[in-house]
This record gives sequence, C-alpha cells and structure tokens, in this order.
Amino acid sequence: MKKSVLRSKLIQIFKKHRLSKKHSAICADYLIKAELLAAKSHGLTRLKMYCDRIKKNLINPKPKIKIRKINSSVSHIDADNSIGFVSADIGISQAIKNAKKTGIGLVGIKRSGHFGLSSFYAEQAVKKNLIVLCFTNAPPALAPYGAKKSLFGTNPICFGVPTGKVPFILDTSTSIINRGKIRRANKFGEKIPFGVALDKFGKITTDPKKALEGTQLPIAGFKGSGLAWMVDILSGVITGSSHGGKTKDPFDDFSGPQNVGHLFITINPKIFIGKRFIKEINKNINLVKKLPKAKGFSSILYPGERKNNLYKKNSKKDISIPQKILNEMSNLNAV
Amino acid sequence: MKKSVLRSKLIQIFKKHRLSKKHSAICADYLIKAELLAAKSHGLTRLKMYCDRIKKNLINPKPKIKIRKINSSVSHIDADNSIGFVSADIGISQAIKNAKKTGIGLVGIKRSGHFGLSSFYAEQAVKKNLIVLCFTNAPPALAPYGAKKSLFGTNPICFGVPTGKVPFILDTSTSIINRGKIRRANKFGEKIPFGVALDKFGKITTDPKKALEGTQLPIAGFKGSGLAWMVDILSGVITGSSHGGKTKDPFDDFSGPQNVGHLFITINPKIFIGKRFIKEINKNINLVKKLPKAKGFSSILYPGERKNNLYKKNSKKDISIPQKILNEMSNLNAV
Repeated sequence: MKKSVLRSKLIQIFKKHRLSKKHSAICADYLIKAELLAAKSHGLTRLKMYCDRIKKNLINPKPKIKIRKINSSVSHIDADNSIGFVSADIGISQAIKNAKKTGIGLVGIKRSGHFGLSSFYAEQAVKKNLIVLCFTNAPPALAPYGAKKSLFGTNPICFGVPTGKVPFILDTSTSIINRGKIRRANKFGEKIPFGVALDKFGKITTDPKKALEGTQLPIAGFKGSGLAWMVDILSGVITGSSHGGKTKDPFDDFSGPQNVGHLFITINPKIFIGKRFIKEINKNINLVKKLPKAKGFSSILYPGERKNNLYKKNSKKDISIPQKILNEMSNLNAV
Repeated sequence: MKKSVLRSKLIQIFKKHRLSKKHSAICADYLIKAELLAAKSHGLTRLKMYCDRIKKNLINPKPKIKIRKINSSVSHIDADNSIGFVSADIGISQAIKNAKKTGIGLVGIKRSGHFGLSSFYAEQAVKKNLIVLCFTNAPPALAPYGAKKSLFGTNPICFGVPTGKVPFILDTSTSIINRGKIRRANKFGEKIPFGVALDKFGKITTDPKKALEGTQLPIAGFKGSGLAWMVDILSGVITGSSHGGKTKDPFDDFSGPQNVGHLFITINPKIFIGKRFIKEINKNINLVKKLPKAKGFSSILYPGERKNNLYKKNSKKDISIPQKILNEMSNLNAV
C-alpha cells in the first residue's frame, strides 16, 4: 500500500475512534515509521489493540494532558491515559526545550501507554542536537534474577547522540529479544529462537504461545535483571506511574488503563567542550569503524545505522501489509 | 591486619608518594572499602600500580583540580591527572550539591584516572537521598560488535536509588566479568571462567594471561557493545577526556596519563511525586521480593544488598592480605 494511502486510512481509523485529527496524525505517523524501520512488532500489528483499548475507554481518546513545569530543567506530565504516542511526543518536545535552556532536561510522564519504539523520541532530540536517554516500563515479561515469575517489562534503555550524520541511536530491550517479536510470531504461527524464553514450568521453549504464558530471559542474568529494575524505577516509581509488575498488558488486560511511565533525560553535548564535540564524536566513531573486522563482518555499524539504512530503503517502496492486518483495518474502519 | 593499622600504613605510603595528607586519606579509605566489599580486584592489588604511576608523574600527586560551574545544575571538572579517587570524590560532592539546588545535577570530569568502584560515589549520592547514574570509561578490554580487537573498556553502568534502608546500587560492567577479576587471577595464577574472554586469535580461553592479551566478551553481543559505547561517549567524548580506545591501561601503558573521563547525573527522587517516593520504592522492592523463588534461591536480593551484607560482615574482621601484597606494601613504604 502506498504510504500516503495508508496514512489517510490510519488517520481515518483513529478519528473514527474519537481521537482528534492532530492526535490521529501523530499515531498514524509513528505506526508507519515502525513499519518503515522494519520494527513490524511495533507497527500495524498493534493497531487493533490500540483501537480495542480506546473502545473500552482504557485509552482516553480526548486526554487533557497536563504539563507541570517544576523548574527550567524539569517538567512532569500527566498523560491522562492518552495513547502513548501522543504523550511521549509532547514529552520529548518539552525535554528538548528544557535542555536547550539549561543544558540538561528531565521530563517524567505518568499515566501513559505503550508508545511504540523509544527511538522515535530519541531521534527527535538527536535531530535537535541533543544527547538523550529514554526509559519506559512495560507489562511483566521478565523474571527478576532469583524469581521464577515475570515482573519486569522488557524495559528498554535508549540512548541517542548527534553525529552530524546519521543519528547514533541505541535502543535495546533488557530482554534477549523484544516481546513484540514473540507476539508477532504468535500471531503468524512462527517459532521463536531457542534460549530466549521459558514456558510456565521454567523450561526453554521455542513456542511463542508458551513463551507468552511463561517468562522471557533478561540479557546477562542479574546484570540485565538489574538494568530492567533500574528502568522500572526511573520510568515507573519516580514519575508516579505503575511499577513493580503492575503495568497492565495492553493485549491481555482490560481491567484498567496501562499506566505506563516514561522518563526522558536530554543533555546538550556541547555543554562541556563546545564546538569540539562534533569533531570528537566523529573521531570516536571512526576509531571503532577502522578496527579489524570479525569473521562475517565487512563493516562495523554504530547503533542506528542499520535501522537508518532500512528506513531509507523501505521509504522508497510501498508498505506490504499481511491480509490478516488488512482485514483488521477494514473492520476497524467500518466501526 | 587491623583496619586502623592498614589505614595508617596506606596513608603513609601515599604521603611518601607526595600526596597531601587529605588526598592520602581519601585513597586509603577507598582502597579499604574495596577490600571490605570483597571487590579485591579494585583494592590493595592496585596499590603498587597507583604508586608506580605517581613515581613516573603519570598520576599528578599535587593536582590543581579546577571546578568550572556552568550553571546551577551543571559543572565541569578538570582533574589535572589526579588519582581518580580524589577527583571523583570532589565530583560526586559537586553533583550532590547541584541536584540539591535544582533537582538535577550533571558533572563531567576530564583528565582523571581509575577511581575504584563506581558504587563508591553512587553510595554517597544515595546517602544524601538522591538517585544517581555514574559512568566512567576504561582502557581497551572489549571488542565492539563486529570487530576482533578490543577498544571499549569494561565501561560500567552504575545506578543508585535511596530506599530508606540499604541503598539500591546496581554497578555492572558491560563485560561478562570485570577486568580486575582477570588481572587478579593472573596475579595469583588462577583460571578464569569459560566463555568470558577470547585469546588474541579469537578463541575462548580460561587462561587470564591470554585473556588480557586477547579481548573480553561484552554482555549480550551488540546490546552490551552498544551500552559500552554509550558509556564511552557519556564519560569520554563529551567531558573532553580520552575515548575510542585511547584511555591508557594503568598497568601496562606508561606513555602518558590515563585521561579517564567520568560523568555523574544526580536526580532528586522526590522531584515528581514528593514524599510518596519512599513509600513507592519500598512497595516496588517488596513486590519483587515476594515473587516465587527460582530453584536454588531462598530470597531475592536487590542490587547492593549482597555487597552491603558482605561489607557489614567483613567490617567486623581484620583484613587478610596476601603475602605478595604485604611485600609490595613494605617496598612501597621503604621508598
């Protein structure tokens, strides 16, 4: 499907679900962006879920989002259970403004929802020449180190830095693979890799359904478990959102709004060394790139480069949409 | 050896190496702290290295450390090649002051050296009721994803949060094990675990000497590699320190000062939700602790608890010092 056609269709769907024209466009653009980044687990496969939650008033289609300015660096946002895309979009703009003023910005967002990829928001800060750290919590998917039941989400750590060229954006979940990939495998009857998840009895499984009932494995045992816990504290505990496994699963739990928390930290990369920064970051990248390559590698890419290449390539083509999702879309549009 | 005796001896050694009385005491206290935390790789085993570097004027025993205040949240410190303990000690104090004023503090330190454990500094911020992120780079030890040669250090990520009880402090290197552990195994003729390091030909090795000549493995492949890169950018690139593999190895490279960079971010955890914070963090911890335990676990500890238990236990006893280090100490004292 042509991007422009898809965009119109998505806006129409969100508007039918009572979102404002502006909010509908924001959501449509982020969903298309996920598809173009080949992050299909965060794209159209989630459209029906978002709409289902709006219909049940678990996502507020007409949120009154409040921005409380604490000081020139720090703001706190109450998302009023908006769709995550909208509140995070407002939040990153605020974090950018704050850092532009003082060199460092801190924005906490409470009562939000799933916002797609952290890199969506990191990229905006990087394009405004800022360093950024984005944290968000998520529904239970990982067992804390020492436990046999999921509690932490796949809680990503996202870091961006401007390079003057393609943005350096690391966006890494603290699980071995993203939960969205398991969900998508489940939706399309595919298997998941060996060693990334356990079934509910604690046995390794490649069946995505069993993995969803069981628990995913964190990267590097207690290290990944600790990093996931850090993300839960930064995005959930201190912002006043849900935490400690209380963030609701958007697909399975319709007992209330998700209440996801996000935290954005923005830093002016020139704050210490001024204009030299851009020379130094490029020196850094070049030192890495010119290292001797490991077997099977013809070049070393920095985080964000591969995704940027995919985005450019996919932007030239129409977006291919599985029949299952096309059916969902026409049902949603007929509501 | 009694702690008080050891402390006097260490102060004497550092004073003999031209450090001021105050700086000597700071260094002695951090080295003892590493021993009490059972982080022996960061304790007395490094004393000779520090002294060797001072003798060769690669660590400046009389540094003129300059603190440049950029605004009420942000400061930049030029450590003048001081021993890392001293500049990081000053840096964390400044980061605490800044966050106490504005809710968020950012301190970058350039031209510093190895500072022991990140948790030393995180703990100070946490004890002043602040959340803290500490980053430091380190000499080449990890191959970036796609490369077959070391470039990143084991670049730790350290996160601390006050709980009202034992501080929550996650201090995790981005390598599978700490380089200090490999150095110590080498010093004492022990083996290292399988699967944590490669020799210089790219083969897995359990020989610490071969591992030191080769490269260590990052946690979780490209994820850990990306996190190590993030730490290099935050602590090295933006502070104006060395980066991209140019941080000198304190044990092997006497061609100049180490020029390590550190970055501290401090946050008032009550900035968004006020006094409710302490209730929420304890709720969070309790939710994790009461999960059903995995096989082999009788309780779930949060990061920092195990170290705190060790510290309390070891504080009641004398410090046992291997003969090799006792000999080093008496040689250093005789200089």
